[in-house]
Formats: sequence, C-alpha cells, structure tokens
Amino acid sequence: MAVAIVQGASRGLGLQFCKVLASRADVAKVIATSRSAENEAALHRMQSQFPNKIVLINVDVTKENNIKQVVPKITEESTGKIDLLLNCSAILHPSGKGETSLRDVSLEGLRTTFETNTIGPLLIAKYFSPLLLKSSGLLGKQAGKKHSGILVNLTAKVSSISDNHVGGWYSYRLSKSALNMATKNLSIELGRGKSKVICVALHPGTVDTDLSRPYHKDKLSVEDTGKCLAWDGNAIPF
Amino acid sequence: MAVAIVQGASRGLGLQFCKVLASRADVAKVIATSRSAENEAALHRMQSQFPNKIVLINVDVTKENNIKQVVPKITEESTGKIDLLLNCSAILHPSGKGETSLRDVSLEGLRTTFETNTIGPLLIAKYFSPLLLKSSGLLGKQAGKKHSGILVNLTAKVSSISDNHVGGWYSYRLSKSALNMATKNLSIELGRGKSKVICVALHPGTVDTDLSRPYHKDKLSVEDTGKCLAWDGNAIPF
Repeated sequence: MAVAIVQGASRGLGLQFCKVLASRADVAKVIATSRSAENEAALHRMQSQFPNKIVLINVDVTKENNIKQVVPKITEESTGKIDLLLNCSAILHPSGKGETSLRDVSLEGLRTTFETNTIGPLLIAKYFSPLLLKSSGLLGKQAGKKHSGILVNLTAKVSSISDNHVGGWYSYRLSKSALNMATKNLSIELGRGKSKVICVALHPGTVDTDLSRPYHKDKLSVEDTGKCLAWDGNAIPF
Repeated sequence: MAVAIVQGASRGLGLQFCKVLASRADVAKVIATSRSAENEAALHRMQSQFPNKIVLINVDVTKENNIKQVVPKITEESTGKIDLLLNCSAILHPSGKGETSLRDVSLEGLRTTFETNTIGPLLIAKYFSPLLLKSSGLLGKQAGKKHSGILVNLTAKVSSISDNHVGGWYSYRLSKSALNMATKNLSIELGRGKSKVICVALHPGTVDTDLSRPYHKDKLSVEDTGKCLAWDGNAIPF
C-alpha cells in the first residue's frame, strides 16, 4: 500500500490532490503538509471523511530549519518510505496579483515568490528524497519494476520560456522556470543509482481538469523523468 | 556616439566588456557599475587608459533602494539615453563552489544566488529600461533603424533546461534559467511600442573567446530579441 505526501495541502490543488489520493484503495496514507495544516478546517473535514488515512503536519517550506525538524516525524508516519511526493505550494505574487509590467516588479515580490515556489519545493526534495529512494515503486506505469518513488513539482504552462508570448507575471514565471530546472536537476541526481525516482514538473491544466488523471497508475514511467508534462500527458517545451 | 552601461564591471567578463567597449571609436562613454566600482584598482587603471570615457558608479544590485538612488546620476552621465546595457553580475554560489548534490543545497545559498544573478539584473532592467527606450539605436545590425537600445543579460549554457544532462550547480542553474525567462519577458514588454529594445541572454563561451564578437555592429538585430544566444550567434534552446 502506497504512502503519499502532499506539500501545500491546505487549499486549491493541494487540497484536491489529498482527496483524490485518500480515496484510492491502493493508497494507505496521505501526509498533508502546509504552514498551518494542523489547524485547517478543510483538512480536518477531509480527515473525518477518510478515517485513519490522512495525517496533518505543519511545515513552513520557507524555513529550512522547520523542514529539517519534521523529518523524523514524517519518516515515522511514512514508515520510512514515500511513493509519491507532490510539491504544490505556490503563490502568484505576495500581493495576490501578478506583475503586469516592470513597474510592478520589486525585490521583495521576487524574493518571496522564489522562496515559496522554487526554494521551498527544492528543500522539500532535499530532505525527503531519501524516503522516495526507499519506495518500492508502488505507483506509476512500471510499478514495482523500474523505479522507486515519484516526485511531482506543480508547475504551469506559463513556466515555459519558449511558449511565452505575452510576458508579465515576472515573479511567477521566473520562479516556475527555475522550478523546472530544479526538476530536471533532481531527475538526474535521483535517477543515477539503481533506485530511480521519477521526477516531473506538472502543468495541471484548468481548474475543471480531472486532477487524478496524471496520477493514474497507467501514466508515469521512467521515460518521463525530467520532463514538463501537461495534465493530459503531453510534454511542454522548456 | 554610443553610451554603454556595464553592471558587474569590477572583475571577470564585466571588466573585459568595459575595456572592449571603451576601446571602440563609436562608444563615447562606458558607465561601469558594481558594488564597489569607485574603489576598484582595475577599473581605475582602465579609466586612465581611456581618458574621459569611463565613469565609475557604486551600485549594489541586491538593494532596490540603492539602484533607485543612482538613477538620477546615471541619467545625467548618459545624457538621458543608453544604447547598450550589459548585466554581468553573477556568482556561482556564495561559498564559491557550485552544489555537486542536494546535500550542498541550502536556503541561504539559493536565496543569495537568485538575488545576485536574477533579481539584481531584472531590477536594473526595471530602472534603466526608460533610458534604453530613448536610445536612437546606435549599436546593432540595424543601427538607427528598427530598434532603440540593446539589453544583454549574461547567461551560461548551463542555464538551458533541455541541454542539462549532468545536473548539479543547483543555485547557479536555477538562477540563470530564471534570468532567461526574465530576458524573454523583457523582450516582450520592451518590444511592444514603436521604440523597441533588443533583449538577449548571452552565453559568453569559454574565457578565451573574443568577447567583443557578439557586440560587433553587424551582429544583433530585432529578430534576435528574446533569444538565448551563444557567443558565436547560435541560439541555445531553453
């Protein structure tokens, strides 16, 4: 039975991913983290909907010490292996509004967005990749055969430099391009040994999308690692 | 006669670019900036080599207020227009050594590298693009015709996500991928009006490369804007 961890679980896509994963019969446990996961009403409601399946743990990805501190607890909860890690935390901009022009660009806006959207997910990968490497590969197309765990960084189509034709949203675009590079680097570093972690950047599509689709057992394989994929499985150029 | 500004001028490529530009007959003035430009012996030596051509101004690109404060001085020195802006400031990692694996990745290392390599150059573009837009386009292949100033962000081949086959160097790679996206965004925003700034990300090649080559009058044209180019003019995929 698989163990999944959803980082950035308290709202939006992260929250939906928790629900989809908890409702699967082959998933034993979903570890839901966010800055305030333990106090989020929506996550508590979900917990009662799926008894004994969802664990809530507060993690602030913008504080490396905080991530480090929860490693023992998450290692214990996951019984030492994670089959799927979803990095979902993201902001458009601390103001809530993406920059429409250079006038709106600021040091503080860029720094905060990089910390939440890029640095946080990479630090999560740093501290939890040992658990992904210990997965026996229960999820994915080649389950139990060619790979160990799966690491998914939520990205967006606007992260594609070559597909950028309208500009704007400086902080968000830059942070997601950098996250795509992080994903590529992770796919290389975590794909070297005998135990290979599949690492992909995922563009989730529109809100109406069936979010469970890309995680369907029949989808991801080791050949996908390092790619930026849309929800329908198609590759997006960098 | 053209005016150029070299940001990150106190050493390495920035210093060489100053020399190459100052030695050109069609360049009237080179504004050399860095955190400590006014106190750098190498820049002072260059100043005496090219009398009345080089202006030294201290600018710390990791402090937005500091950039803002020097706008009036640079506007005056450039007589209100800049034909070429070169963003050269970059670090591999605050430790001086790129990360060979996730073990070396840290919040502080990533944050500092993003501030110097990505956020700084973008803030420089924010505050000095008005001067680039006022250039009558003295440099470039279509000089005086199709474009105004030229903005060059120094990148590196390792910034290419699709060309990344070895991994490592997390902070540097991520910061340069994000800078490539910034360049693309700038090319769109500064290419909309009648006065178009050519914006390119440049991979300078090896140290022995003839650095002046990509800046030769006959090289850049508006069709290049938004691209990541190697020193020899060839495009690098994102």
